[in-house]
Amino acid sequence: MKISSYAAGAWYQSPAEGTLVRDAVYGEPVAQVSSEGLDFKAMVEYARKVGGPNLRRYTFHERAAMLRALAQYLQERKEAFYALSYKTGATRYDSWFDIDGGIGTFFSYSSLARRELPNARFLAEDDPLTLSKQGTFLGRHILVPKEGVAVHINAFNFPLWGMLEKLAPGLIAGVPAIVKPATQTAYLTEAVFRAMLEANLLPEGAIQLVCGGIGDLFDHLNEQDSVTFTGSAATGRKLKTHPSLIAHSVPFNMEADSLNCAILGQTVEPGDPEFGLFVKEVTREMTAKAGQKCTAIRRVIVPREKTEAVLEALKQELSQTRLGDPSREDVRMGPLVGANQRADVLSVVEALKAQGCEVAWEGSRELLGGDLEKGGFMPPTLLFSPKPWDSAAHDLEPFGPVATMMPYESLDEAIALARRGRGSLVGSVVTYQPEEARTLFFGLATHHGRMLILNRENAKESTGHGSPLPLLLHGGPGRAGAGEELGGVRGIKHYMQRCAVQADPTTLMVLSQEYVRGARLKEDVIHPFRKYFEDLEIGESLLTHRRTVTEADLVNFANVTGDYFYAHVDEIGAKDSIFGKRVAHGYFLISAAAGLFVSPAPGPVLANYGLENLRFIEPVGMGDTIRARLTVKSKTAKDPRPGERPTGVVTWAVEITNQDGKTVALYDILTLVERRPESVPQA
Amino acid sequence: MKISSYAAGAWYQSPAEGTLVRDAVYGEPVAQVSSEGLDFKAMVEYARKVGGPNLRRYTFHERAAMLRALAQYLQERKEAFYALSYKTGATRYDSWFDIDGGIGTFFSYSSLARRELPNARFLAEDDPLTLSKQGTFLGRHILVPKEGVAVHINAFNFPLWGMLEKLAPGLIAGVPAIVKPATQTAYLTEAVFRAMLEANLLPEGAIQLVCGGIGDLFDHLNEQDSVTFTGSAATGRKLKTHPSLIAHSVPFNMEADSLNCAILGQTVEPGDPEFGLFVKEVTREMTAKAGQKCTAIRRVIVPREKTEAVLEALKQELSQTRLGDPSREDVRMGPLVGANQRADVLSVVEALKAQGCEVAWEGSRELLGGDLEKGGFMPPTLLFSPKPWDSAAHDLEPFGPVATMMPYESLDEAIALARRGRGSLVGSVVTYQPEEARTLFFGLATHHGRMLILNRENAKESTGHGSPLPLLLHGGPGRAGAGEELGGVRGIKHYMQRCAVQADPTTLMVLSQEYVRGARLKEDVIHPFRKYFEDLEIGESLLTHRRTVTEADLVNFANVTGDYFYAHVDEIGAKDSIFGKRVAHGYFLISAAAGLFVSPAPGPVLANYGLENLRFIEPVGMGDTIRARLTVKSKTAKDPRPGERPTGVVTWAVEITNQDGKTVALYDILTLVERRPESVPQA
Repeated sequence: MKISSYAAGAWYQSPAEGTLVRDAVYGEPVAQVSSEGLDFKAMVEYARKVGGPNLRRYTFHERAAMLRALAQYLQERKEAFYALSYKTGATRYDSWFDIDGGIGTFFSYSSLARRELPNARFLAEDDPLTLSKQGTFLGRHILVPKEGVAVHINAFNFPLWGMLEKLAPGLIAGVPAIVKPATQTAYLTEAVFRAMLEANLLPEGAIQLVCGGIGDLFDHLNEQDSVTFTGSAATGRKLKTHPSLIAHSVPFNMEADSLNCAILGQTVEPGDPEFGLFVKEVTREMTAKAGQKCTAIRRVIVPREKTEAVLEALKQELSQTRLGDPSREDVRMGPLVGANQRADVLSVVEALKAQGCEVAWEGSRELLGGDLEKGGFMPPTLLFSPKPWDSAAHDLEPFGPVATMMPYESLDEAIALARRGRGSLVGSVVTYQPEEARTLFFGLATHHGRMLILNRENAKESTGHGSPLPLLLHGGPGRAGAGEELGGVRGIKHYMQRCAVQADPTTLMVLSQEYVRGARLKEDVIHPFRKYFEDLEIGESLLTHRRTVTEADLVNFANVTGDYFYAHVDEIGAKDSIFGKRVAHGYFLISAAAGLFVSPAPGPVLANYGLENLRFIEPVGMGDTIRARLTVKSKTAKDPRPGERPTGVVTWAVEITNQDGKTVALYDILTLVERRPESVPQA
Repeated sequence: MKISSYAAGAWYQSPAEGTLVRDAVYGEPVAQVSSEGLDFKAMVEYARKVGGPNLRRYTFHERAAMLRALAQYLQERKEAFYALSYKTGATRYDSWFDIDGGIGTFFSYSSLARRELPNARFLAEDDPLTLSKQGTFLGRHILVPKEGVAVHINAFNFPLWGMLEKLAPGLIAGVPAIVKPATQTAYLTEAVFRAMLEANLLPEGAIQLVCGGIGDLFDHLNEQDSVTFTGSAATGRKLKTHPSLIAHSVPFNMEADSLNCAILGQTVEPGDPEFGLFVKEVTREMTAKAGQKCTAIRRVIVPREKTEAVLEALKQELSQTRLGDPSREDVRMGPLVGANQRADVLSVVEALKAQGCEVAWEGSRELLGGDLEKGGFMPPTLLFSPKPWDSAAHDLEPFGPVATMMPYESLDEAIALARRGRGSLVGSVVTYQPEEARTLFFGLATHHGRMLILNRENAKESTGHGSPLPLLLHGGPGRAGAGEELGGVRGIKHYMQRCAVQADPTTLMVLSQEYVRGARLKEDVIHPFRKYFEDLEIGESLLTHRRTVTEADLVNFANVTGDYFYAHVDEIGAKDSIFGKRVAHGYFLISAAAGLFVSPAPGPVLANYGLENLRFIEPVGMGDTIRARLTVKSKTAKDPRPGERPTGVVTWAVEITNQDGKTVALYDILTLVERRPESVPQA
């Protein structure tokens, strides 16, 4: 019954009795939770001395592979988590967001890392910046993993997703974590954590777990550490100003519940698909997880003349909500996490009523299983705010199946009402009119971390108002905590230190492992297309033979491509062009450059599959003589898939110059290059 | 003598006597500074109601043009600022960083905005993200200016640069500012601020000024506001935890002085150019602004066996430092900002000595003008820490012409010593060996916001250890405050709210003003190459006629380009290739696509000057039939320069498909398109 923490490489069960946690459905005891006696200082040191160095030994891609394997491992065992999740009050539908959603975050971040990050231990950001006239002084931003620990403080409502969505970007970044789940549902987090350890896929020290209070943990944090917090605004503010965090400027990312809105567009009529979509979305957000979501819709903002129609439709939809034991298939909504939570929500509802909100509809208390008193059951409750400007619903948050409807007269008023939330995680706009969506979006973007525009076009594929996605920012301004969690690579960078480096081209090339114009080149008698991936060095370069561009070339190129643009073939028109004369096709130049640098016989370079950053800098006329320089810019080894030839991506910088040494065109080409057969381990 | 504040559109002189500020050289009174009686609430409201809306009316490019014009205006009047700057203790050389450096930040940000931001009122970041299988649900991050005020709290040492480097990114973002200079040098900031108002180039309400204390200013800030702070760590920490900032999650960017280091590489010998560069850089950092720079070198870390040689060379170099009245040309170093500041620095020096630091060298107190007692004069002082591990120089900062030298035995030790600074704005490494630079850089990147690698290659063009640059991150972790100021577009985004939008392709296109694949296209009988910039609509599209790719095309293209790569022309080799057969050159496909979509006669489309994001997706073999779709993706009007045809940049999305409707290639082309002659105002 006592659940444990995992500290400095060992499970720890506190001798203290701890907090008794009861299941949400029947109020039976499920767990005792205490962290008393944990050595928090040792945990932080262990993360720094063991977990960090172990993780940093790997590349982004290698860590991504670990995450993917771990996600697969959890995926295969997820039914056990579903079974346990019912005790938290979640239906199978609710748990899907928590369990499959959480595991999905691992898969997403794993793919993202392999797609958008190099197969390296650091990240060179953007392009090198030339900081001087002669080009001997350049700058670039390089990100490295912080050498501390990431402390993740999670909320009770998503015991899996909360842990996994924070771990994913941090582990990819190469930073070990201490996870602290909320006490009420820590037993589920602990079960998943156990499975993650059993999988034995992460290096030693990568993750630790605190079930119970965080004791003096914060006292041991310093400038290499970071804290990511999800929970109530009050707790968040308190933790954020902890003297130790302030003294060491420890980054504190805060995600607090907020008074999210959904707005029905003025152009939507009761018969439109969008009308039904709005009603369904509001219902889903009120009832999923029994409304215990920081992203749930709390304020339902509708055109005044459609208030009645919306109300009727909502009542009808909400009345489908069968309350009861969430493990039963005929139950649509389970209890809140516990009777205490219900008491909290009811007291907020009372406060809202006292301040002018009316109860528009309340669901039945009839249960399909579960204990009405000892469990956390509460029916969906729809409030109506007749004076929306003075509504307490802009300030008070019932963290349960409660929303407040309020009417608006104009889009400006809808915007002003929505902004009264003083910063939200997410807002929804339901409309089929792009212009209406535009007005509402730009009226509300300053106050939201995410906005969903829902209509018949995307409804089938929409992931919904309430779901944060790994690739999109999660976090809103003001009341929502002003955090920036998730959001693709941005989420990973949160755990890294950005350092601007200033250096000469050669040093910058060595540091960033990417060729920089002006760096010392390496030339070899062997053509670079004759070399395997492993044998190509960054900065290795080929200067080709020359070719004089003639009138025949222009004509032949026009004939074979059908491109008779006047600047190339019309002597009269070309005189008036910005070039003042007939010039070679840009496409001819890059095609002829390939003719100069390609090594035609079969070899390790398998294909040119893309091209980036092409700029034509000087026009080339008849009689000009061009040559190309091809230089290895960067390399990324690819995970070989079964049956595929093992390859890597080699990016080549190409520069075409003319007879005066002037640069005519600059671009990068992307090629697939075979790896040395013996260098790839056999599967 | 009393200086004023500028609040809610009017100059305000406090009736209070205020703080008496004396000049740094002779100790004569220069100004009385007080903000008593200022209505801070009204200032914040004025910024919100007047300044913000006025600024947001313009595009990034229009605001960039204002900054450039304002920079030119200040440039023409800068001699007056130089004259006043002497009173702060700055030599002309020192003032160059403050005055020309500050104005330069305006120029830099102006260019940056026109180069890297759209000519629009919002910024769509990265590319659209496809969030679903069918592509009906997409996401994108859009940034909009925050609708509050940016409060800039500046340090005394750079009264111009401090104001201008913070204003530049904020004004480009479209956010009004309240500038609060440090009292000691507020008279210079006030003079520049007056000139900025006189220029009348910024919209009403864009800038306000508080000379004196900030009173209850913070009480009026909310979630749309932000604070940018430069100053001491102690003050920064106090302000950062202000209850109002915490309650509203107001972003607080902190830049604190730090114990920056310079490391001489182990491979550098006394005769090497790097040896001299190191000595000069340390000397410059100790004496420029009399060491009153948050980026100054405080810790001089050198190989133990070269300690003597470095010390000798430093003494020789430092002894050139003639102290005195900074307005005299023969003076190399002026006084500290005042006698109080000297007292502070001397007390830190005493504390360092008490904790084991030895005085290695001290400059002469002989003055070339100025008052030794009443002014802030203090000679350069070089300390030596014989036991570097226990050195107090890692913790105590003398904010004056003082540095502490410490020996190291190995690169690992050098790294460990440098990290004892617990987070710095900048560190320098002087070495000519890229591998040594790499070891030191990756050992120190976690602890620094910026690292300079200095050697003979870049010394001539290096901007030096102490200079933050507009394009590079300014801010370091931990002790340095963990801020992220400047750094190109990143600095601008600091003043904007990032909002993730989820929508269908058409709505996303309308919101982001950029064509999104899958959005509803517009087709017209007029070829889009026949239209002026203004007449092209986002999403306007041309589907071309078809072309069958034949063996003759492959052969002719190989002949005209000289590209005989086996996959195109060698039947035997191509069979074994990843394509399994001869395929068309990728360059042929994009050239032939141009042949399909180009409208050959002279017209508004002047040139195709670049190409981006090209990916070859399906190979095309002989007998395949291709066609292209050309769609207006985005448009950016360019500022017409005198004598140039007024143009805009139009980016076109190109998709090549085959006879099965499969996508063969995707890319964007960049063209220059003429604007309607009548739409451009005549200069």
